[in-house]
Amino acid sequence: MVIDERKLIETVFAPLAAGAPGAFGLRDDAALLPVFDNEDHVVTVDTLVEGVHFRSHDPADTIGRKALRVNVSDLTAKGADPFAWFLSLALPATTPKGWVEDFAAGLAEDQARYGLDLYGGDTVVSPGVVIISVTMVGRCPAGTSVRRFDGQSGDLIYVSGTIGDGALGLLVDDTARMAGLKAADRRMLNRKYLLPDPPVKLAMVLRSYGRAAMDISDGLVNDLGLMCATSGIGARVEIDAIPLSGPARAALAAQDCGLPDLLAGGDDYQVLAAVPRDRASAFEEAARRVGVAVSRIGRFTAKSAGVGFFDGEGEAIDLPKSTFRHFG
Amino acid sequence: MVIDERKLIETVFAPLAAGAPGAFGLRDDAALLPVFDNEDHVVTVDTLVEGVHFRSHDPADTIGRKALRVNVSDLTAKGADPFAWFLSLALPATTPKGWVEDFAAGLAEDQARYGLDLYGGDTVVSPGVVIISVTMVGRCPAGTSVRRFDGQSGDLIYVSGTIGDGALGLLVDDTARMAGLKAADRRMLNRKYLLPDPPVKLAMVLRSYGRAAMDISDGLVNDLGLMCATSGIGARVEIDAIPLSGPARAALAAQDCGLPDLLAGGDDYQVLAAVPRDRASAFEEAARRVGVAVSRIGRFTAKSAGVGFFDGEGEAIDLPKSTFRHFG
Repeated sequence: MVIDERKLIETVFAPLAAGAPGAFGLRDDAALLPVFDNEDHVVTVDTLVEGVHFRSHDPADTIGRKALRVNVSDLTAKGADPFAWFLSLALPATTPKGWVEDFAAGLAEDQARYGLDLYGGDTVVSPGVVIISVTMVGRCPAGTSVRRFDGQSGDLIYVSGTIGDGALGLLVDDTARMAGLKAADRRMLNRKYLLPDPPVKLAMVLRSYGRAAMDISDGLVNDLGLMCATSGIGARVEIDAIPLSGPARAALAAQDCGLPDLLAGGDDYQVLAAVPRDRASAFEEAARRVGVAVSRIGRFTAKSAGVGFFDGEGEAIDLPKSTFRHFG
Repeated sequence: MVIDERKLIETVFAPLAAGAPGAFGLRDDAALLPVFDNEDHVVTVDTLVEGVHFRSHDPADTIGRKALRVNVSDLTAKGADPFAWFLSLALPATTPKGWVEDFAAGLAEDQARYGLDLYGGDTVVSPGVVIISVTMVGRCPAGTSVRRFDGQSGDLIYVSGTIGDGALGLLVDDTARMAGLKAADRRMLNRKYLLPDPPVKLAMVLRSYGRAAMDISDGLVNDLGLMCATSGIGARVEIDAIPLSGPARAALAAQDCGLPDLLAGGDDYQVLAAVPRDRASAFEEAARRVGVAVSRIGRFTAKSAGVGFFDGEGEAIDLPKSTFRHFG
């Protein structure tokens, strides 16, 4: 296939921009981004590289959806509601037309799911692999978004959803290590790897009750370390309080995987939040109202205490920061 | 070199974000983009690929500067003043540290030149070549930006600067065709290829007097064709009125290059504008006041007349749409 950029824009990408007046049907070189009274714009950029952030054989539609979801995840954790995005797509000239169509079908599906519109972008030829860069814009009432570096000693540590499923979803496919897993569990974990499910409704809860937040994309150990480092604090996590899915518990019990796989594997796309103690019950109640599971897993401490993970006997557990070092 | 993303951000990129409070020193995953009362945000994305949009041996500092300038060029042509940008950088793991430092030094220089601040981005490993994607945001009074597709039959056609120098700058380096050129002219043309010089001050003139505008990045023939196609009009260009630089005229006279090289070669990064006849003198006067050279090269016509280029005798000249088909 020789990719014709103009045709690609007209037939594949322009339909994704149909709901955005400021995108002008992608007939211009630049977009008019809506600005809302008394609201802030929160912007994030996340880039996925074939062979690093997704596998060549992953279904094209889930690759597109994941490219959106990792950015939705970033904005959710900032307390912002995503509404606009821009795509820079580097495609090998040999990319089959069907791949691009499936990729776009996935984008369309998740645009509807998350209330997003494509506002613009650029498509270029890649002499190497597929590289997908998404710039996404979210909105929130002025002054209400939360940062990564504002955690304080004494705040409680919360995470959303369950931890480690995405990392296991990658493992079940790539190794025979977890042969004991039921087929249904295997599929569920793999699905979580392919299609993270960021808790978008937690955004409004975070802006009311969160002190600091970030999404967990590189593993809980690494990202908690980042929040502590940038906030100038320490943390004490009770490992037994970390929420695990049924399949993850089963794999752990069967010694098919270890804690490092779950807590340092990456691809969670859940929220890590610092919540002041006196807002904790309101935070939990608000999360329950919007239907997002949150778990209190420990508390932030003075920086001097470091970042520690403790078992039920109060013993410190040594965990690597990451079991998989992808660059970026 | 094994590139450490965090170190790269702290030492190389964070200084570029120092002037932007909403970038938080790149210590967060997302930025707060300023919103201005009664102003629009105009956003563009342009991606440069090594070997396609720049050459591997181009100086790293000019590659960075060009990545900014092609986006500045897009916004200028929309009547917007650029102020914020986001970088997605895909780098081979073997990229020398010095290359990245030179690249960033170029970015710093042009940030100062254009009043830009880095607000965020992502750095990833590229298994192939360097790919640089920039998302840039400009501002203008609400409702004043100009589109590509609003040209009308009867409007006058204007271009800024001179046409064809960038394309010749690529030719002088790559072929022996233009051996007759003086060394100084050769350097000047090459410089124009490496470092386009978008007429930023024309933005305010366009929002007052322009009806439609776009930047010329893929050659005058191609881009005028695009403006006509999207506006549903035709055009009649007087070739003798197209502004050429001294070196371009010399190369043309010596038959070292032909009109197609100049008019369909690309890399101009000048403005193409449709100006209503009754605003033409005000447009010219305003351009003069801000020190941007503009030339009237013809007029837009009914769509049925097509897009034609005519010589001094009124003969139609056949020109290819492009002498160089890069994809994107």
